Amino acid sequence: MNNFKNSKMNVDALFLGPKSENAVFFKEMMEYAVSEHMHWRSGYHPEDPDLISTVDRYAPEYRDTLYRTEGILNQLSSKLKTTSVPWFSPRYMGHMNADTFMISNLAYVMAMMYNPNNCAQESSPTTTVLEIEAGLDLCGMFGYDVQNSWGHITSGGTVANYEGLWVARNLKTLPLAMAKHPQAQALLSDKSDHALLNMSTVSILDLIDVLKKQGLFEAVREMTCRGEGIEQGKLGKLLVPQSKHYSWLKAMDILGLGQQNIVQLPVDENYRTDVNQMRQIIFSLIEQGEPILAVVAVVGTTETGAIDNVAEVIKLRSECETRFGVSFYVHIDAAYAGYACAMFRDENNQFIDYEALIQRYHNEGVFPPDVVWPKPDVYESFKALNQADSITVDPHKVGFIPYAAGAICMKDKRIVDLISYHAAYVFEEVQEKSRKSDKQQNVLLGSSIMEGSKAGATAAAVWAAHRLVPLNLWGYGKVIAAGVTTANWLIEKINLSQPFVIDNREFEIMAMPSPDFHMVNFMFKESSNTCLVKQNQLNKRIYELCSYAAGRTYANDFLTSSTSLSYEEYGDNPKNLCCDAGFSESEWDKVRSIYVLRAAIMTHCLRDKQHFDSYWEELTNIFEDKLQQLIDEENKHSQPNQKVSI
Amino acid sequence: MNNFKNSKMNVDALFLGPKSENAVFFKEMMEYAVSEHMHWRSGYHPEDPDLISTVDRYAPEYRDTLYRTEGILNQLSSKLKTTSVPWFSPRYMGHMNADTFMISNLAYVMAMMYNPNNCAQESSPTTTVLEIEAGLDLCGMFGYDVQNSWGHITSGGTVANYEGLWVARNLKTLPLAMAKHPQAQALLSDKSDHALLNMSTVSILDLIDVLKKQGLFEAVREMTCRGEGIEQGKLGKLLVPQSKHYSWLKAMDILGLGQQNIVQLPVDENYRTDVNQMRQIIFSLIEQGEPILAVVAVVGTTETGAIDNVAEVIKLRSECETRFGVSFYVHIDAAYAGYACAMFRDENNQFIDYEALIQRYHNEGVFPPDVVWPKPDVYESFKALNQADSITVDPHKVGFIPYAAGAICMKDKRIVDLISYHAAYVFEEVQEKSRKSDKQQNVLLGSSIMEGSKAGATAAAVWAAHRLVPLNLWGYGKVIAAGVTTANWLIEKINLSQPFVIDNREFEIMAMPSPDFHMVNFMFKESSNTCLVKQNQLNKRIYELCSYAAGRTYANDFLTSSTSLSYEEYGDNPKNLCCDAGFSESEWDKVRSIYVLRAAIMTHCLRDKQHFDSYWEELTNIFEDKLQQLIDEENKHSQPNQKVSI
Repeated sequence: MNNFKNSKMNVDALFLGPKSENAVFFKEMMEYAVSEHMHWRSGYHPEDPDLISTVDRYAPEYRDTLYRTEGILNQLSSKLKTTSVPWFSPRYMGHMNADTFMISNLAYVMAMMYNPNNCAQESSPTTTVLEIEAGLDLCGMFGYDVQNSWGHITSGGTVANYEGLWVARNLKTLPLAMAKHPQAQALLSDKSDHALLNMSTVSILDLIDVLKKQGLFEAVREMTCRGEGIEQGKLGKLLVPQSKHYSWLKAMDILGLGQQNIVQLPVDENYRTDVNQMRQIIFSLIEQGEPILAVVAVVGTTETGAIDNVAEVIKLRSECETRFGVSFYVHIDAAYAGYACAMFRDENNQFIDYEALIQRYHNEGVFPPDVVWPKPDVYESFKALNQADSITVDPHKVGFIPYAAGAICMKDKRIVDLISYHAAYVFEEVQEKSRKSDKQQNVLLGSSIMEGSKAGATAAAVWAAHRLVPLNLWGYGKVIAAGVTTANWLIEKINLSQPFVIDNREFEIMAMPSPDFHMVNFMFKESSNTCLVKQNQLNKRIYELCSYAAGRTYANDFLTSSTSLSYEEYGDNPKNLCCDAGFSESEWDKVRSIYVLRAAIMTHCLRDKQHFDSYWEELTNIFEDKLQQLIDEENKHSQPNQKVSI
Repeated sequence: MNNFKNSKMNVDALFLGPKSENAVFFKEMMEYAVSEHMHWRSGYHPEDPDLISTVDRYAPEYRDTLYRTEGILNQLSSKLKTTSVPWFSPRYMGHMNADTFMISNLAYVMAMMYNPNNCAQESSPTTTVLEIEAGLDLCGMFGYDVQNSWGHITSGGTVANYEGLWVARNLKTLPLAMAKHPQAQALLSDKSDHALLNMSTVSILDLIDVLKKQGLFEAVREMTCRGEGIEQGKLGKLLVPQSKHYSWLKAMDILGLGQQNIVQLPVDENYRTDVNQMRQIIFSLIEQGEPILAVVAVVGTTETGAIDNVAEVIKLRSECETRFGVSFYVHIDAAYAGYACAMFRDENNQFIDYEALIQRYHNEGVFPPDVVWPKPDVYESFKALNQADSITVDPHKVGFIPYAAGAICMKDKRIVDLISYHAAYVFEEVQEKSRKSDKQQNVLLGSSIMEGSKAGATAAAVWAAHRLVPLNLWGYGKVIAAGVTTANWLIEKINLSQPFVIDNREFEIMAMPSPDFHMVNFMFKESSNTCLVKQNQLNKRIYELCSYAAGRTYANDFLTSSTSLSYEEYGDNPKNLCCDAGFSESEWDKVRSIYVLRAAIMTHCLRDKQHFDSYWEELTNIFEDKLQQLIDEENKHSQPNQKVSI
């Protein structure tokens, strides 16, 4: 990342742009990417005979095949143009999607032409090295020691979460396996099952070192659950916030642990894991003698972008270790907000002090004066990430990489031996060598990760992005800050907005205040309405009018997504939102679910106040139109005899 | 696939070509793909204000960012050119790699610009539909009823194998769960654990229907291992051939079943699962009362391309059902050879009779007169695929799609409910609708498959390939036949070849005869040598000289891969190969491993006999050079005092 130090970065120059502003550059580079590869082909043994002659190439069958190729591509293009979603436009504010970096699209194409497979370095001499570099970039961003940590690319956060739970699970059974092994059991000072099931990650990893020295590791590893399978209910509980992604349910199924062994942690009024209740739950599990397989904290929930108090989880773990001699694995699901850790790092990858950070943000124009981010406890959460055992992060979300690019980072790379399928020493050795030089080694990623074959092109895309946009406040920080700024302004505008008056009916618009990151939840409300069911119907219909559900997205003026905040996931916490909106407590108690429009604000091109203001003006016109449309529909349906409420 | 019927396909016109022969067309189409998307952007609300002005775009920081982008792409290109592997050239014959279809590369880029995520149709209105179509194409090729089957894309064969075992595992625990459920247990006529653990796939799926009708399905599903976790050792054994891919070991670990519950089936002299021994093993497991979780047959092993007798596995299952009332799940790992099923299908997707097939191959020029493929038992294996419960197949292998594109097909789509994360009815309904029309539905692939986020671009790449190259003998059949033909000729040439005489030393070259598919295993042998260790060293060194291990692949004249056929995986079967090569039985008994060069012959451009003959001439020159180099090295090391054998 050094080459960045002497130059400043322009955020708009990273993307193709909402009107393809960088079309000329992008085309030129695409042409370059393709030509480079073509010359590589034609330059490889140019003395070889022509296997496909020009005469062959003008034969009718040959031309016909090319024409048919073109025809199918025409067909594909029409399909894509008809039903794709314009993520690139600020008119899209919904899922965690926006424009993606030009460099990553170009790097992907460039590498794809060579078609490397990062399963084995033999099939990807270039891109395996790039994947290891990109993985260590992320480890460094999270504050892991890059000499001892390990990160790699997955197809997405779902697979990264599986892999985190996989290592945690196998780790948990290592002490049990040792206790069963005649020679290894002597290495355990404490032999109660309870003690064995509650050891800290680092003490188990230290045992691995001892086992390796004594030549016992591989035999003991065969006696972990990897060799013997899961003992039902033995490994304890996985604690995940109620606000979790459903991949955690899938993970417990796939890994054979059973969904019933999930304990869902309630969330607080900020939609974050409730620290006090978590504390009580953990203490009570300890009291019952139930082991804790792992605790998952979410950094950026899918629905509200809430950032769990990671620092409190880490503190609580220390407390449990000191008070009860009980430890547990901590995994962070930072699929959404993980890249925001870059916002806290300076040019030398140091985590900046809070005061200094806020000052630099404003002095150096990362944020405008009226935007203050982050809240102090959010800051502490990011600072504590380096204490977690593993972290999921999605380059294809806030990393601005095209799909599919997830990643997982592990604090202590020794843990990989628990899931790895070759002799333990090979892995470290080659990782070391790959880092030091471009010399060709045979790193077998496929035998140390969950997946097998994988596109080396993805590694090139992530690697190139990290080279151009450093993982610090000047690189990714600036790009992500654009979205956070826009989110802040948007909430402010919404909450200061005058009601819309349409056909003598008044509709307010309101947003959930001060999110932890750049997720804006907002809703419309008819002023006179006191019924939550009708309220939910109203917003459901607005979502439909502002989404792919209403037909061609391309013809739409504004696109968003939506979700329901329900008792099942959030307890009574959304009641505040209901009451703030003017509904009675009893309405919430009856319905227990509130439908909101949900927008991850990732656009880079509304960070100028003037641009934003005119955008907002346009947006209010669109909202007015949508409400008008909705009322027209309602009127149409309610006459002559039919009466259907919205 | 209908548009193919009236036109013939030229195989060379499908690929960019070994010298970029189709450069003009490819560039034109790439330009089209990119332009189409750019116009889509600029045409979306053209009335919107310019957020990035021309003046902005010529500011120094902006230009600087673009220049740095270019610089990083230059760097990436040099890296790729320095250490990539020239798959596209017939000089590369090693792993299952070759040139990939132009249309798939172009379709990938075209779709990537829109960046769809096939996790949810809301994020991929176009490409989710394409994925479902591509999945059903594969189901149809395997002879599954497309109305009742289900297929989708995975990141590769590894994940597809996991998913196959996942459904098999969850299926196995459904009857046990029913027996525990007060109302559901009444639906089971037979209640012994043994009977419950040995039910056939279809009878369990029929029970699901009954459970659904009674509204009990979801409750019972929570009582399967998905909800409750694995009971150690309860679900019986997974039978996989010794020749298996290591992903099966990973699968047993990940799915919590334990690797110790793998029973490895010995292979016969053809490196296929030994049918008689399999029979005995299965009967003895049944006798012991041990359930069989699943039997895996491999269609195209990684090392020799052997094709297991699928028909025999299916017959054996029927026999077990009739004789013992015991059934088991059958999964086919056809990652490598699965696409070859297209070679047996006519224009109406009918499986062609053997005699008629061979006749058509020769009458219609699919194969030249001197090549007869397949062996009758290989034919029977492909014919029996439609009886398997699920099949793994890799579009990124013999589908000629760029990485990463695997796939899994399931015979009976009802099975998906066992792993699915939403109400059961939704899935079928939307799949039905997607097939019938382009109307937008919200298919949530992510909740019915293992992975979450996934590139819609991959679906576009596979879909487009299937449209251009139909899955029958005229489409993929012709492309794959080119490789099979070349493999046959190569073996013939090798085995008829005169020994190489270099510095008065004589070296023979020999190939394993008549492989099931297009994998050629071959080796060099010094005529006078009787020592197997020296033999293995010789071929190891030749591999190094013909691979990325010798430095820049680009500077190399010929590239191959290698493997060891060892007792551990193949029992004493490689002894034949040793003896044929002139080693004594006792040499094999001592070393129990023979090192071979391994080449999957996938190139399309040596299917002309004249081209092949001149290629072979060049190849013999290269082999002579490599042997000379090796002898020179040996001489250098052995003088003056040092004596190191090769």
